[in-house]
Amino acid sequence: MGEKIVIVGGVAAGPKTACRAKRLMPDAEITVVDQDSLISYGGCGIPYYVSGDVADEDELRKTSFHMTRNEDFFLRAKGIQVRTLTRCLAIDRKAKCLEVEDLKSGTKDTIPYDKLVIATGSQPFVLPIPGAELEGVYTISDLHKAIAIKQQLATGKIGRAVVIGGGAIGLEMAEAFTDLWGVETSVVEFMPQLLPRIIDPWFSTMLQRHMEAMGVHIHTGEGASEIIADDNGRACKVVTPHRTLETDIVIMATGVRPRSQLAHDAGLLVSPFGIVVNNRLQTSDPNIYAAGDCIEVTHMVSGQKFTAPLGSLANREGRIVADNLAGIPSTYPGAMGSFIMKAFERSIGATGLSLESARAAGFDADAAITAPSDRAHFFPNEAKIPLQMVFDRRSRRVLGVQGFGPMNDAVLTRIDAAAALIAKNGTIDDFSLCEMAYAPPFATALDALNSAANVADNMQMNRQRNLAIPDFLAWMNDLSGRPDWLALDIRHPAETKAFKEKFGAAWLELAYDQVRANHQDLPRDKTLIIICDAGTRSYETQVFLDSVGLTNTLVLGGGFNVITRMEPSWWPAK
Amino acid sequence: MGEKIVIVGGVAAGPKTACRAKRLMPDAEITVVDQDSLISYGGCGIPYYVSGDVADEDELRKTSFHMTRNEDFFLRAKGIQVRTLTRCLAIDRKAKCLEVEDLKSGTKDTIPYDKLVIATGSQPFVLPIPGAELEGVYTISDLHKAIAIKQQLATGKIGRAVVIGGGAIGLEMAEAFTDLWGVETSVVEFMPQLLPRIIDPWFSTMLQRHMEAMGVHIHTGEGASEIIADDNGRACKVVTPHRTLETDIVIMATGVRPRSQLAHDAGLLVSPFGIVVNNRLQTSDPNIYAAGDCIEVTHMVSGQKFTAPLGSLANREGRIVADNLAGIPSTYPGAMGSFIMKAFERSIGATGLSLESARAAGFDADAAITAPSDRAHFFPNEAKIPLQMVFDRRSRRVLGVQGFGPMNDAVLTRIDAAAALIAKNGTIDDFSLCEMAYAPPFATALDALNSAANVADNMQMNRQRNLAIPDFLAWMNDLSGRPDWLALDIRHPAETKAFKEKFGAAWLELAYDQVRANHQDLPRDKTLIIICDAGTRSYETQVFLDSVGLTNTLVLGGGFNVITRMEPSWWPAK
Repeated sequence: MGEKIVIVGGVAAGPKTACRAKRLMPDAEITVVDQDSLISYGGCGIPYYVSGDVADEDELRKTSFHMTRNEDFFLRAKGIQVRTLTRCLAIDRKAKCLEVEDLKSGTKDTIPYDKLVIATGSQPFVLPIPGAELEGVYTISDLHKAIAIKQQLATGKIGRAVVIGGGAIGLEMAEAFTDLWGVETSVVEFMPQLLPRIIDPWFSTMLQRHMEAMGVHIHTGEGASEIIADDNGRACKVVTPHRTLETDIVIMATGVRPRSQLAHDAGLLVSPFGIVVNNRLQTSDPNIYAAGDCIEVTHMVSGQKFTAPLGSLANREGRIVADNLAGIPSTYPGAMGSFIMKAFERSIGATGLSLESARAAGFDADAAITAPSDRAHFFPNEAKIPLQMVFDRRSRRVLGVQGFGPMNDAVLTRIDAAAALIAKNGTIDDFSLCEMAYAPPFATALDALNSAANVADNMQMNRQRNLAIPDFLAWMNDLSGRPDWLALDIRHPAETKAFKEKFGAAWLELAYDQVRANHQDLPRDKTLIIICDAGTRSYETQVFLDSVGLTNTLVLGGGFNVITRMEPSWWPAK
Repeated sequence: MGEKIVIVGGVAAGPKTACRAKRLMPDAEITVVDQDSLISYGGCGIPYYVSGDVADEDELRKTSFHMTRNEDFFLRAKGIQVRTLTRCLAIDRKAKCLEVEDLKSGTKDTIPYDKLVIATGSQPFVLPIPGAELEGVYTISDLHKAIAIKQQLATGKIGRAVVIGGGAIGLEMAEAFTDLWGVETSVVEFMPQLLPRIIDPWFSTMLQRHMEAMGVHIHTGEGASEIIADDNGRACKVVTPHRTLETDIVIMATGVRPRSQLAHDAGLLVSPFGIVVNNRLQTSDPNIYAAGDCIEVTHMVSGQKFTAPLGSLANREGRIVADNLAGIPSTYPGAMGSFIMKAFERSIGATGLSLESARAAGFDADAAITAPSDRAHFFPNEAKIPLQMVFDRRSRRVLGVQGFGPMNDAVLTRIDAAAALIAKNGTIDDFSLCEMAYAPPFATALDALNSAANVADNMQMNRQRNLAIPDFLAWMNDLSGRPDWLALDIRHPAETKAFKEKFGAAWLELAYDQVRANHQDLPRDKTLIIICDAGTRSYETQVFLDSVGLTNTLVLGGGFNVITRMEPSWWPAK
């Protein structure tokens, strides 16, 4: 027999490491240990299991060829020993063995290793508020919890739900409750926006409006302060500073923390972001590797350390650990948190840094906001996809991309291409030239991503001067606050009419193709906020007005396609 | 007034150059000259106009904000003078002026320039066969031809059509005829496959089978040798070496040639691939630039020169010419022909080099062929997307990617991400780690593109030994030809049963999860072709069998998901 490799953790990074290592080293004796009875499941599928899209929890444990990944499967098909319901108590690094407890029998024994892999994942962060531990409060931490939630729903007694936490898992759960089960669902999020840190506020507001339109009640900037029990000791109310929400079930989706206690207790280097590893995913003990949610990851754009609890990364990391166990010097460059999410009839995605994160990381960052077509505008199912490109003004490096569009792969396409280029330190120029495949049913001749780069280029070269969207919204909220500002609406007169009527003197109209002929009529003592559908004509207009000396203008990037998705109620009906 | 810039050609690269140049240099006096009356249209949309997806030809000439891009629009909105129906007769480089003829009046005059841009596009290549010029034979070269074809269809008298040429435009036209108009359509292609040079044969065969299933008659390896007229002098038959096809209309879609005569006559450097330009798109005369279908392009992967008549590139090139006209030193890195096409209910795409092109270009190329899921296998609309990654065995550089999938953006996503990485000289390792966004409705934890890279890695490291698909098909065609070969079908016994019955002794079964226990039963004097659904289990099996000394095995990459799409009639019904 070859080397003894022991892997702690049997969900994503653990099994991936085990299987790849066994393929690379058929002689190795590989054991996976997990405290749970269910292993190797697609945890990211839990919201779709709860919603009913996935009928049976077993589906989340199956291979694409319909075999259930249980202990027997790993042994027969993979040649890997799996010990479920087995808790790791400690790592004896000197003796190179793992102390474990059989949770069925309570017996303890030791498992010797030549190489150890820690893939202990993450644990849900539970808000330290009264009632957090009540019956009826669920985290989305494993398949058992998911099964329990679905059983609750299946009783037909769940009419109302409160999700605490407006991150991806919370929102996916809110959709599952609302869309498939018709449950009256509220989301409370302590931060002032959904998907904080991942998505910039203007994009998360578009998402929020859509989810609200689909029937989800969303309360941002409002943390849960207490969960109250009914007479049976079951959670029945969630209290925030502004309201008390009656509910039949509470989902606690307030993030996760790396599960690094075992590593810490063994004297391995651990940071608040997880187990510290080098770029071969080796811990501070060269005989011990770590992978998955439990490790500290380096951000490929900012260079900062962070926690990146994503199933996609766990699988990549597992493969790299296996390579290194087998003597193949694979290295891990870090991650940038590429992200995509379905929300009812929309998708939202991001990769790299948001504008806020980029500025916080010290970049001289700005954002090109656009609203390009996802495919040829004459093609029947064309849609506008608000797209943002964050770039560094000094280096022209692209730092991040975000998109919001219909529920298909249009946003995904741009996020994935962006992720590929950002990983290679792509600049605005690389994005402008990136040769996206074109045919009218799929894209535009200059792809949405190319166009966003061209806007970024114009901004970085100071040819285009934008108004930040929050500043525009603040002005619209109080038009009298900036009497020296005027909207210059350059769309077709048929489109501007209702706006002129609603906003009166603050709203100026001059159709795009009339600007060259009639710019003399524009006031020169005001700042003109140039507005069109997507921002493209506004930029053209700004450039022309500059050339005739009218330089007090700002472009509203993304135009109406962005702001009407953010505040649909403000605008006149079409 | 500023510089006089004259642009010859008003479809894609020309107008793009003109508009960007005017924005960069508001003082410039810009004139676009075109011999046609219709300009600035989306030529790639012609098949969708013919099919009726796009109702009116005017739609192809409109901006996304519904203005028709005619002479008046360019003048009013863009400040650009357009002279349509004006033919360029010659360039007088010494006098720096263009000799033109007004096609309405026949009068000739000259247009002086400071800088000239040639964007004359391409012209259809017409096969030099008898009857090629008959009435009823149409090229897809401009909007007038498209209008004429649609008028023909609208008469209701077109029952049969023959498309000569199995490239993208020919196939899109075949779909338009068949799908929307119910026309009995045949495609004849001289080369032995559809989409020659762009797509490797195994992928184009999958496309062909789908188009045949949708009712298109396809004859490859069969050039048209003559077109015969009826009594009215109208084309009514297309003759090939193997058959005579009766028809009511003939579409000649046999490729295009760069329209470089004007440049050639002016003494500019011209190659068979087009007008020769440097990386600022300057011709051999520094005062003359060129862009679009008419220029010679450098392939970013092979370094070879080629013609790349794509609307997407024309727009990129136009922008670069405008930058250089304005003194911004933008450079053009070349192109790699990223490609995507709708064919009924499927999409097919490619970027970079095909396996055949890569080998022809001197690379030590091999191809990883896979059939991954486009999204989580437990998600309702999941589909398998045969995907191929061509790589260089020496450098591990990825040279090209091809994909075939359902009619959505799943293939596009992988092609675009691949194009982004290939442009940055991405290696197998870059592709393996590329952080594609993941959520079950959109992708798998290791994305299809990552998985293809992992297969390429295993092949390049000689851990996986594949059988080439053409060799497999040749064997299946004559099982007696290689009596030392056996299929080892490792799928579930319920799936293999009908195959065993059909192929008898040539077909061996041993389920994937039984291989470790029962490998002793396998013959050691045969070459085993290991077959599963996608190739993944076959690789695992090969690795295990190697470890027990049974090394006479080959993996069928992509498994049944590829070969059943190629030769559906060969296989037992499900």
